[in-house]
Amino acid sequence: MSSTTVPRDLPPTITWERDRIVLLDQTRLPELHRVEVTTVDGLVDAIRRLVVRGAPALGVAGAYGVALAARDGGDLREDAERIASARPTAANLRRGVERALAAPDPLAAAHAFRDEDVAACRAIGARGAALLGELCGERPLRLHTHCNAGALACVEWGTALGVVRSLHASGRVELVVADETRPLLQGSRITAVELQALGVPHRVVVDGAAASVIARGLVDAVVVGADRIAANGDVANKIGTYPLALAAARAGIPFVVAAPETTVDAATPDGAAIEIEERDAAEVVAGADAWNPAFDVTPADLVTAIVTDTRTWRP
Amino acid sequence: MSSTTVPRDLPPTITWERDRIVLLDQTRLPELHRVEVTTVDGLVDAIRRLVVRGAPALGVAGAYGVALAARDGGDLREDAERIASARPTAANLRRGVERALAAPDPLAAAHAFRDEDVAACRAIGARGAALLGELCGERPLRLHTHCNAGALACVEWGTALGVVRSLHASGRVELVVADETRPLLQGSRITAVELQALGVPHRVVVDGAAASVIARGLVDAVVVGADRIAANGDVANKIGTYPLALAAARAGIPFVVAAPETTVDAATPDGAAIEIEERDAAEVVAGADAWNPAFDVTPADLVTAIVTDTRTWRP
Repeated sequence: MSSTTVPRDLPPTITWERDRIVLLDQTRLPELHRVEVTTVDGLVDAIRRLVVRGAPALGVAGAYGVALAARDGGDLREDAERIASARPTAANLRRGVERALAAPDPLAAAHAFRDEDVAACRAIGARGAALLGELCGERPLRLHTHCNAGALACVEWGTALGVVRSLHASGRVELVVADETRPLLQGSRITAVELQALGVPHRVVVDGAAASVIARGLVDAVVVGADRIAANGDVANKIGTYPLALAAARAGIPFVVAAPETTVDAATPDGAAIEIEERDAAEVVAGADAWNPAFDVTPADLVTAIVTDTRTWRP
Repeated sequence: MSSTTVPRDLPPTITWERDRIVLLDQTRLPELHRVEVTTVDGLVDAIRRLVVRGAPALGVAGAYGVALAARDGGDLREDAERIASARPTAANLRRGVERALAAPDPLAAAHAFRDEDVAACRAIGARGAALLGELCGERPLRLHTHCNAGALACVEWGTALGVVRSLHASGRVELVVADETRPLLQGSRITAVELQALGVPHRVVVDGAAASVIARGLVDAVVVGADRIAANGDVANKIGTYPLALAAARAGIPFVVAAPETTVDAATPDGAAIEIEERDAAEVVAGADAWNPAFDVTPADLVTAIVTDTRTWRP
């Protein structure tokens, strides 16, 4: 177990170094500590404690976990199952485990899985940056985002923040406004840290301020990620995304969704078919009755474009 | 007003009992503690510590403070000035002080000021309840509110929550959804406590969830207060109000503003002329750059009606 702090850009959330998994400890943000994981037990613990989080990052962690288990030579299927069930609802975690388990060389499969996520994020970033240039002009932009669709939810680069990164690389980001994203504050805890590390000027606002920031003309476009996209282009994303789309439509600025093509679910015809996860009321307020839906659905007619690693879709 | 007062109702925020000011200590909510104030120094301290808060309640506190000073026989003008400047931007506090100071009998003037606030709130409540009956039907309603426009901001009864109270008195409230209202959480800290005391079924949601609660058909109408209303009907209210208006318009449900007629400012032509107070970034997040606008402006075209103590206005 070692820790280092990084001066500017963030380290990747997960890498394989000297036969070990190295994780950026997300429980200690905004401090940047890297943790080495050398055993399956250590990985299961890290996944449970949210040292690593975010669907793509969890998938890669699962795959590398199988590589770790294969190297140690225990009961591979049993180890794999322990990893996959460390967070039972994380579909990507199990997908990563199963892909490595099915491969003749689990480590090579894990590397490939990791590289694919990085490549997808970079493709999304490049495509999104080009689209925003088209929509808003080739000038430094003021962008609004919600939650964390950044490098820290992926392996590196990110989706919505990947677009920001790609624009920033060519000097075309003037400001990012990040919603704090209650109840779990991914905006102020994670997105702000990413932007800080990148040297991107940013301001955090309470979620209630987002719509009026847009109405007052303080941003040029909204760029968010997605948890699931229905076949008709309705977008499920972190709770609090929909009011940004309403405000963007009224203000006449672009509302762009950036997500891997794998997020598009052909089996879900529209937003009404997406079940909204209801989380523990205690995340909102202790000792009172609360509703705590984790996601909302933005109807396709409010979405200017969905940018994936393979296409720009105007639903 | 019919006597359907709920037994577990909250005590008034401010009363005059046995030559003393008695305040409901708002710093100790949700516990209900009443504190007696017997000196001008004690009142200045209570105002500064937000033991009493809310524009109407502060006005009445100022007037009773002058009555206290008159009874004690010190330098009345000096005492009055100390009270009025305890919170320098609270216009109502100074208004209450000045009104009592100008009267031959400060205590009688303070009582009158208090009674006027109570009467205005009850008139708003009755008028708002009637309007919602017209708009939504004479059935138990599910209402959405933001921040705290309740008894605890006034002397008793409240404005937006006064409408809820008036409806509840005739058994016509099924549910109130209250936004937590970041950054200061007036919804979860104060509105939820009022509703609990009234025995009104309620749920607290994060501010980002408000628009999708409306989109999902979980409420019948939105009822909010106002900090200032422009001559054209644009409404300034606590940050996070505007996205409710956007969502209500899209969902086709009423968006009703409840406020005393004194909130309408004929000297402000429209929302663009309302200066938006920017508060300390530290209220939002420690150690990061934040924007913290305290209010937003809802354009008149999104407002179904403004209910005051003297009229129902459809701007």
